[in-house]
Amino acid sequence: MGYANVNHPSLNLFGIILAGGSGTRFWPLSRSHYPKQVLRLLGSESMLQATIGRVLPLIPLEHLMVVTSATQEDVIRLELYRTGWDEIRLVTEPIGRNTAAAVGLAARLLPAENEPILAVFPADHHIQDPEAFLQALGRGAELAKAGFLVTFGILPVRPETGYGYIQCGSPIDSHRKAYYASRFIEKPPLAQAEAFVRAGNYYWNSGIFLFSRKTILEAMARHLPELDGRLNALQNELASPQFEAMYRNLPSVSLDHGVLEKVDNLVVIPLDVGWDDVGTWGALKNLFPPDDQGNVALGNTVNVDSKNCIIYAQDRLVATIGLDQMIVVDTPDATLVCPLNKVQEVKDLVAELDRREMVESSQHLTVERPWGSYTIIDAGHGYKVKEVVVHPGKRLSLQYHNQRAEHWVVVQGEALVTIGQEVSKITANESVYIPVKTPHRLENPGLAPLKIIEVQTGPYLEEDDIVRLNDDFWRG
Amino acid sequence: MGYANVNHPSLNLFGIILAGGSGTRFWPLSRSHYPKQVLRLLGSESMLQATIGRVLPLIPLEHLMVVTSATQEDVIRLELYRTGWDEIRLVTEPIGRNTAAAVGLAARLLPAENEPILAVFPADHHIQDPEAFLQALGRGAELAKAGFLVTFGILPVRPETGYGYIQCGSPIDSHRKAYYASRFIEKPPLAQAEAFVRAGNYYWNSGIFLFSRKTILEAMARHLPELDGRLNALQNELASPQFEAMYRNLPSVSLDHGVLEKVDNLVVIPLDVGWDDVGTWGALKNLFPPDDQGNVALGNTVNVDSKNCIIYAQDRLVATIGLDQMIVVDTPDATLVCPLNKVQEVKDLVAELDRREMVESSQHLTVERPWGSYTIIDAGHGYKVKEVVVHPGKRLSLQYHNQRAEHWVVVQGEALVTIGQEVSKITANESVYIPVKTPHRLENPGLAPLKIIEVQTGPYLEEDDIVRLNDDFWRG
Repeated sequence: MGYANVNHPSLNLFGIILAGGSGTRFWPLSRSHYPKQVLRLLGSESMLQATIGRVLPLIPLEHLMVVTSATQEDVIRLELYRTGWDEIRLVTEPIGRNTAAAVGLAARLLPAENEPILAVFPADHHIQDPEAFLQALGRGAELAKAGFLVTFGILPVRPETGYGYIQCGSPIDSHRKAYYASRFIEKPPLAQAEAFVRAGNYYWNSGIFLFSRKTILEAMARHLPELDGRLNALQNELASPQFEAMYRNLPSVSLDHGVLEKVDNLVVIPLDVGWDDVGTWGALKNLFPPDDQGNVALGNTVNVDSKNCIIYAQDRLVATIGLDQMIVVDTPDATLVCPLNKVQEVKDLVAELDRREMVESSQHLTVERPWGSYTIIDAGHGYKVKEVVVHPGKRLSLQYHNQRAEHWVVVQGEALVTIGQEVSKITANESVYIPVKTPHRLENPGLAPLKIIEVQTGPYLEEDDIVRLNDDFWRG
Repeated sequence: MGYANVNHPSLNLFGIILAGGSGTRFWPLSRSHYPKQVLRLLGSESMLQATIGRVLPLIPLEHLMVVTSATQEDVIRLELYRTGWDEIRLVTEPIGRNTAAAVGLAARLLPAENEPILAVFPADHHIQDPEAFLQALGRGAELAKAGFLVTFGILPVRPETGYGYIQCGSPIDSHRKAYYASRFIEKPPLAQAEAFVRAGNYYWNSGIFLFSRKTILEAMARHLPELDGRLNALQNELASPQFEAMYRNLPSVSLDHGVLEKVDNLVVIPLDVGWDDVGTWGALKNLFPPDDQGNVALGNTVNVDSKNCIIYAQDRLVATIGLDQMIVVDTPDATLVCPLNKVQEVKDLVAELDRREMVESSQHLTVERPWGSYTIIDAGHGYKVKEVVVHPGKRLSLQYHNQRAEHWVVVQGEALVTIGQEVSKITANESVYIPVKTPHRLENPGLAPLKIIEVQTGPYLEEDDIVRLNDDFWRG
């Protein structure tokens, strides 16, 4: 991958990336099947890709593990595939059971020999200075090897009431680059948060941790004996039919609350690296420079007299007049309007969408696939129209449909089309017809993207009417 | 048309409908090529259709004239066609020159014999009680025949600062159903407007007028001699090449300010008919019953804790959290977010869109045509995809394109398709290909709507690459 491996030769370092977030707080850009960790908020890289890329100079690919949940497994696997990182081990929780269970399972799955050191990274944080971050990680790894549990603390820049704070005690040595943790405070009221910011020895809990496999397993055995026992029973049942039920029965507790708050060998390394947890839409104010009126406006926007707003548009036009401290987010099938100070309630809104079983809570109109993507551009009684993009050299599965026929019109690039026994090459402005129940395959033999318009007709037009006969990817 | 003509036999009544509004204040639902008077805000009828339908019991179709401007001519003609009201005379101003010019021209175009009485109606007002309205019109027509200029006054229900007020003087007779107008006040400050509401003898100027042809032409000759002279010169030049330039040179003045404020024979008939000029998005609060939180929410909306808002969605989801006194309007290609008290600034926003030459100020993605409609559902380099709907029994022009080929896939209904010399009938799930430069025609021979997906490919894909060989409608 072109990353120089400057791995500390004396340390057997592993990385566990927690990528099971459900993405409710960035709705409508995130959906339950397209969570925050795969958003490309800051450019061409998803937050998961950035998280992995950031640590690769210190931890080789084959020492990384990504933990996700069943709902997100497909999209996470796709992210890894797309970047050529298929060899990263993917561990799928049937359902999220908080960080203690995820880390406890991951630690058990790592080889025990050679004193493995585990670094735990949330998959959806932003870090401006990756080099300083790696230096801090290296220091932390040494401490972990020495038997400490290590957490990284962020010097608070505002009295954030949504975070956990750690009070630091005495430095562990004369270099004063790490401190004993003396107290945890979760989501303090504003006055207390303000006092913490003034005090100077309180840090935000970043959620990035380091410890040896042995240290964390011993700590979990001591402080979370029930979880520990259940994980011991479960670790050899990954492929068994009981796994899902067993996992669902695990106690749901955070690593912070269940373990770190209770141990006496926790140290805090202050991290001054431009960290942001990108927790809500409000974070865009930290990630993008606001204009003279304090607005962060991205995409196709026109604004008259608004200030201090976050306006996130894509292709469609978002026009705003005289707004203050407001968030407007537009996506092809859903728009959100919400005051900045109510941004925490986005998750309540998504819960309401779930309650109404609205597809906008889970899916985008554009769905990414290992071979490319498709976008639903029109639908009505008895028909559905998609724009389908196939990456160069990729092909869809050989498949047929029991209930629909399809018309394909190539509009960009060239297609190798299999219909029944016939294979033909067609290019822009040519079309083919695929009757019901006829095996067919779409392939891009070219060097440029292939784009087709697919018109489906039939009584039933959902994705589950795909019978796959042969697939290049991991789909059955 | 099934309307009972209860025309006063003693009155030779004509109706002039002013339908030249540019529709900036209802953007993004209105566009310059889809103005407020054709919006269907309240149901299946456009405001223009409602305006005409309302007066038909009193004024027959052949006595109606619609005045519009060149930009709106197509869409207004389409509205009349769609309702079967083609015989209404359509007068097109090259450019709007305010109401005095429009009414002066229209009056000259009416036959002078039999003492014609002219009623002037804006095309974009809402009236809840059409029967009471017709009764008031009938009374007004009698007064107009007696030589009065008549305006209809609305008893103010709020201290609106955006309207003109008329102070009423003494009643013209013992019935006290009409009063001499004693003073005009245009857009008063709030304190004055509040005083007017309290006083009880001030009325909003509704913009609905009645006078005999002779009375208004004499009044214009006296009070607007320049406009009068230019209109005299212009009235026989409607078909001449000079018409446009001559019209552009007309003084732009309102009938109220130029004539009505200056005459001594103006009377006001109070109108208690649930009138609303539907002037801004805020009017939806008057037209639709708000819910318990004071919200008017139309279309696909989900709301958490917002109040006193107007939320206008269509197919796409609009989700709102904790808004107060806010307007959110969503259309397929543009969204507006604006506080209720800044609703007057929507026109400034549209001016900005015009300045940037953004298509969203003039056109919708769905364009209505005499034969049906089309919607642009996708577009990219070298291709454009439309959903085309053809009404039963209608057909598009016989046409060809110099730069594009087309693929048609029928998805609903049946199509009679002419391609070159070939005529064939195709139904849902069948497709045809139309090569570049090949004459073709699409027709719906059935009783149900025909819907096709049209995929265009070629280097140039705009509407002006249509060479019409034969058309059922008024297009060249």
